[in-house]
Amino acid sequence: MGTGAGDESSDYGQLTPIPPGPRLGIGMDSCVIPLRHGGLSLVQTTDFFYPLVEDPYMMGRIACANVLSDLYAMGITECDNMLMLLSVSQKMNDKEREKVMPLMIRGFRDAAEEGGTSVTGGQTVINPWIIVGGVATVVCQPSDFIMPDSAVPGDVLVLTKPLGTQVAVNAHQWLDMPEKWNKIKLVVSKEEVEQAYQEAMLNMAMLNRTAASLMHTFNAHAATDITGFGILGHARNLAQQQRSDVAFVIHNLPILAKMAAISKACGNLFGLLQGTSSETSGGLLICLPREQAARFCAEMKSSRLGQGGGSGQEGGAGEGQQAWIIGIVEKGNRCARIIDKPRIIEVPPRGLGSAGQEGNNNTGVPSPSDSATIN
Amino acid sequence: MGTGAGDESSDYGQLTPIPPGPRLGIGMDSCVIPLRHGGLSLVQTTDFFYPLVEDPYMMGRIACANVLSDLYAMGITECDNMLMLLSVSQKMNDKEREKVMPLMIRGFRDAAEEGGTSVTGGQTVINPWIIVGGVATVVCQPSDFIMPDSAVPGDVLVLTKPLGTQVAVNAHQWLDMPEKWNKIKLVVSKEEVEQAYQEAMLNMAMLNRTAASLMHTFNAHAATDITGFGILGHARNLAQQQRSDVAFVIHNLPILAKMAAISKACGNLFGLLQGTSSETSGGLLICLPREQAARFCAEMKSSRLGQGGGSGQEGGAGEGQQAWIIGIVEKGNRCARIIDKPRIIEVPPRGLGSAGQEGNNNTGVPSPSDSATIN
Repeated sequence: MGTGAGDESSDYGQLTPIPPGPRLGIGMDSCVIPLRHGGLSLVQTTDFFYPLVEDPYMMGRIACANVLSDLYAMGITECDNMLMLLSVSQKMNDKEREKVMPLMIRGFRDAAEEGGTSVTGGQTVINPWIIVGGVATVVCQPSDFIMPDSAVPGDVLVLTKPLGTQVAVNAHQWLDMPEKWNKIKLVVSKEEVEQAYQEAMLNMAMLNRTAASLMHTFNAHAATDITGFGILGHARNLAQQQRSDVAFVIHNLPILAKMAAISKACGNLFGLLQGTSSETSGGLLICLPREQAARFCAEMKSSRLGQGGGSGQEGGAGEGQQAWIIGIVEKGNRCARIIDKPRIIEVPPRGLGSAGQEGNNNTGVPSPSDSATIN
Repeated sequence: MGTGAGDESSDYGQLTPIPPGPRLGIGMDSCVIPLRHGGLSLVQTTDFFYPLVEDPYMMGRIACANVLSDLYAMGITECDNMLMLLSVSQKMNDKEREKVMPLMIRGFRDAAEEGGTSVTGGQTVINPWIIVGGVATVVCQPSDFIMPDSAVPGDVLVLTKPLGTQVAVNAHQWLDMPEKWNKIKLVVSKEEVEQAYQEAMLNMAMLNRTAASLMHTFNAHAATDITGFGILGHARNLAQQQRSDVAFVIHNLPILAKMAAISKACGNLFGLLQGTSSETSGGLLICLPREQAARFCAEMKSSRLGQGGGSGQEGGAGEGQQAWIIGIVEKGNRCARIIDKPRIIEVPPRGLGSAGQEGNNNTGVPSPSDSATIN
């Protein structure tokens, strides 16, 4: 759409010079607008979509985490304001509406609060489909954000959530569709699908805020978040933004347990192993100096913040988050690829409890290893 | 939704004290968030809806004018950034989509440019219906905006666009619906409906920026913009925000020519004369000191800015905008009403030319009088 060309067409008052400072328009996760005030920048993003999980409270949390994630991908940890974008489906009756919408709004607000921000406005309309999304805005110093353009050969790629949310959500729907279920029942049990769905939901609802904070600690060179275009699509997009002649090569794919098997059984329907399966509110893909990456993953793991899901409401005490070193940055022409036979890291679910408002604290299921090593 | 409760729940870094300064949450046109930086405030708003005119370019302009209007209602004349919210209808074929969407986007961007800002991001989804809207954000000093809470007895109420857009848009659709048309054909001609529709479209596309600027010049005490709840609904909402014990009394209703007659012929279907007919991208309703109001209207009229519609693209040269004194502020309990037999001011269309991209400059049709007087 726009290109952030400044306000030279204004007829009002003084001719405003275009403020100096880094500027980012359409194409990456957030836009960055230099302001007229004291070297400050306006960073903001919007995102809205349709529900993909059945629990309206969790859907609200996921929508909020998804919007904030675009700020977190810039290494920004604070948000000054959020607006909520909603539509009520015209197909809902009064009872459904009164039950579903407040839960979705509460989920969104709880996640915003977990992110240290709040929702002060928005817009609600009637629509055939339910819409949920929002706008996240922060005014900050240039040192508060990390422009996603400084990857150099020798960096490694870190991913902060496992892949496979689309497969998990679809497989869960197939539990009630015998024709679809028959295609995958040889490779996965109903319990495993249910667990993967719960785990996907918790992951999607988890804020990428800890990762954003650690990007500064460990001198991240660039990052993006993984959403609709899959890991490879977003890796390519990020590679194109780089100032140096680099290429991103992905060796490892951390995937929710059993989702790779389902994808294969469906004839690679989702492109999960090819890196093109859509993710919702996925992790950050971060370019880090090689010597910092393992420590980044260890810090993620020991973090007691940003648990998301139900447990986040109690202040985020938990076992921390996983992150994986999944690839390397080498010299190249701003492209990205997955190696021929990537290592699939099966990421088991954290727990078997019910998700949603009741909370899902980690319940002693063995954790997978911290991070994979490369070469 | 939210209440702007600050970020006391943040686990990150220092405990951030809530910044001082005026704060406005849900309920009025924009939210106002005090920032941590140099006394600055973040003011932002979002709005999205469905197309109501047939010309996609004009629809884009209207959507943008409608979003910006929430800032203008605060007396804000600058906008640092806009995001665009769009959905493509799944019922459109490729050809329709490729024709309609770029025009709508261009209209939105042109109006943003007229407002001295630009569109740097947004989100587009597929939906059963077309959605168009946006987000407008500015970071400014407290002196740049006027909190909508300072009306005092003795003020007068000024309105900066005529009412009747909903009636005009509907009557225009009825041209092709004999059953509906038969109900109103005794009180209005097809030409008059066509003209009113064109005039409504130009008015909806016109920015309220000049009015926002003059709010400062003439010491406005409070303002809002007229949209979905009609003149009375928004007057009531504004009255409730006031710090003084005031009531708003509306004496005059400036209405697009013939729309009052149509409303009556339909048995007050829209509530136009009762002040409850929905408006889209309507004018500002401004509380001004009595001695300033006539000069405000005169300045609006002589302004060469903010023409909107087609002519705005050439830089806004034109004959200025109308504004009307429509009521008074008296002592009362924060309510608003329309007197029993309000004076209906028939506002004739500016011209007969086609609207839209071709432009519609004023073509010598006599202007109505500047402003109505009261009592």
